[in-house]
Amino acid sequence: MSRLFMFEKPLGMRDTLPFLYEMKKRIRHAMTNEIEKWGYQFIETPTLEYYETVGTASAILDQQLFKLLDQQGHTLVLRPDMTAPIARLAASRLYENGNPLRLAYNANVFRAQQREGGRPAEFEQIGVECIGDGTIAADAEVISLMIAALEQTGLKRFTVAIGHIGYVNALFLDVLGNEERANVLRRFLYEKNYVGYREHVKALPLSSIDKQRLLKLLELRGDEATIAEAREQIDTKEGAKAVTELEQLFEHLRLYGVIERIKIDLNLISHMNYYTGILFEVYAENVGFPLGNGGRYDELLAKFERKAPATGFGIRVDRLIEALGDPEEKNDIHCIIFSQERFAEAVQLANERRRKGERVVLQHISGITDIDACTKQYSDVTYLIGSDRKDE
Amino acid sequence: MSRLFMFEKPLGMRDTLPFLYEMKKRIRHAMTNEIEKWGYQFIETPTLEYYETVGTASAILDQQLFKLLDQQGHTLVLRPDMTAPIARLAASRLYENGNPLRLAYNANVFRAQQREGGRPAEFEQIGVECIGDGTIAADAEVISLMIAALEQTGLKRFTVAIGHIGYVNALFLDVLGNEERANVLRRFLYEKNYVGYREHVKALPLSSIDKQRLLKLLELRGDEATIAEAREQIDTKEGAKAVTELEQLFEHLRLYGVIERIKIDLNLISHMNYYTGILFEVYAENVGFPLGNGGRYDELLAKFERKAPATGFGIRVDRLIEALGDPEEKNDIHCIIFSQERFAEAVQLANERRRKGERVVLQHISGITDIDACTKQYSDVTYLIGSDRKDE
Repeated sequence: MSRLFMFEKPLGMRDTLPFLYEMKKRIRHAMTNEIEKWGYQFIETPTLEYYETVGTASAILDQQLFKLLDQQGHTLVLRPDMTAPIARLAASRLYENGNPLRLAYNANVFRAQQREGGRPAEFEQIGVECIGDGTIAADAEVISLMIAALEQTGLKRFTVAIGHIGYVNALFLDVLGNEERANVLRRFLYEKNYVGYREHVKALPLSSIDKQRLLKLLELRGDEATIAEAREQIDTKEGAKAVTELEQLFEHLRLYGVIERIKIDLNLISHMNYYTGILFEVYAENVGFPLGNGGRYDELLAKFERKAPATGFGIRVDRLIEALGDPEEKNDIHCIIFSQERFAEAVQLANERRRKGERVVLQHISGITDIDACTKQYSDVTYLIGSDRKDE
Repeated sequence: MSRLFMFEKPLGMRDTLPFLYEMKKRIRHAMTNEIEKWGYQFIETPTLEYYETVGTASAILDQQLFKLLDQQGHTLVLRPDMTAPIARLAASRLYENGNPLRLAYNANVFRAQQREGGRPAEFEQIGVECIGDGTIAADAEVISLMIAALEQTGLKRFTVAIGHIGYVNALFLDVLGNEERANVLRRFLYEKNYVGYREHVKALPLSSIDKQRLLKLLELRGDEATIAEAREQIDTKEGAKAVTELEQLFEHLRLYGVIERIKIDLNLISHMNYYTGILFEVYAENVGFPLGNGGRYDELLAKFERKAPATGFGIRVDRLIEALGDPEEKNDIHCIIFSQERFAEAVQLANERRRKGERVVLQHISGITDIDACTKQYSDVTYLIGSDRKDE
């Protein structure tokens, strides 16, 4: 093995050491427990999928896919998200009778990085998909469940920004008249490049009233009153439908008791072409990127020949850990150091303490190089060394 | 997307549906909980590693590796086992002071399959590595911990076969005189091809006494008395040392109270060149393949320039599930079906029941296509439909 690679990991790949692992474990437990209580059932899908199947149905850019050839010459990908694999699974094996299916996952997903920029190429997501239910109640459910699951992890200060891609599309179509022009503006919003959006709008060959309507969109962010403002900006049928859905959503969220977490943000475009209705992102006060996002994607299942409405969310565990901040590092592992003649006694003591639920290392004295370095790893140490004086 | 691939998964790749997921979850919980009580700390390593780093240090055949090129042109592999990645991690970041390190993992590993033969290309392993402790106490600890963890899953009838590669090597060197000839016989044992072994021995240009010693090896399987028989067959220093280690191991295992699970099997060769001392495989009565295996590998850490003795085990979750057999399928999800006007009441009821720890689906009546098909998924159903008669 060459020294160059000996201790290296591929670009964007990380080890999880015990302290971080404990945090992940606590988060997984808190979130999955809440998700199960809402009747969602966890499933797993393979790490590798056919590129033809989920690679092309995924919302992730092609250059971010890890690809490989299998021994039959087919292109495989490391799953870049869980929504497309769950759609495959639901369409092929689970979604039989047209009735709502509530599935959940806790899985690593993969995104190839071009350069070392601190972005992970593999990260863990916890999320749900509610498939087959097109009601606003389903949108409200996944948002409320996301909030409840995040609260269970101990996260205090976070906000869910809610938008509606149908509203944005209706406004753009009404003002711009064609999809090509709409796509340019959607991309500015997707990139959250509001300066670029403004400059582009100003340069468009439009009436000043139409320009104002496009610029006004950037102001449609805020509390519930924003929904009424949004209604004033649009009078097409599709636009009005989107606003009505947002109103209904708010009624539901109020009854779920989560309204203080919610902000309206009609600039929200989480992916270029994936969501079809209400969509959302969740932000914590101290983290620059969204902890997660979700929304309605009523077209994806049709790619697997089983048309069905669907909505869901996914939370990134790494960003949630960042938002939660460092907990106190506590080491609660007890160590019993024994010499050979007192091994029986040491096993007995370890068994007793483990039975009580304590974490106990049983360490032969001959396995230790530096006794101080060894013992400082543990919360406390019991020595069972030499002949047992009690018996004399 | 072509129809051919639409619902397909790559060779050897599997979905895990809710029922199987629940079993996996129970097994993970039972095993990891026991492993933590013994003071082992869980870690995670990346799914992708450099081929140069862990591919070459792994005990897995090259043709079983999933390989891909990263964007810098380096060869990556999907980790084929967890021992080599943990050795990398231990050598680079954790194994600082020469003192024993107790690490554990619960991870999927990958083995490319040549054809559809029912073998999974991705499977989950739960295991431990005890690094830096060369004592027999450490060998006894990992075997006893493996037994304790398996018992926690509810597994009743299983046996641990224990061998010693040092014994086999000493016998072969003593009788055959060179490694080349020894390798041929080791391969027969590795493949458990005892007929081939016998025929090969008979054809060797050896004295009948020497042939008898080689054939006698096949009989060195059984209870503790086998250790004494093994001692009679060898008088080299290395052979005697191996036998003494097995005797000491038995003393330890007796004190751990696990001796009724143990069989001696001096034919055991779990890998061609990996283990260096005591090694073992665990078998359940009703499963044809070992559920897991382990042993001492004192040379691996040296490949990462940090020479250290080490021992560990890994259990395959898929085979353990097979050994445990099908449990009763129980569905304990309650469903509340509501119409819009009674949504507030429905949320309140769901909240109450979830707070008690129950699993409750909240389903809008408009999201349902076929009410019978929908309700049969749940253990029981509450209907909150139409105006609430209680208030009339």
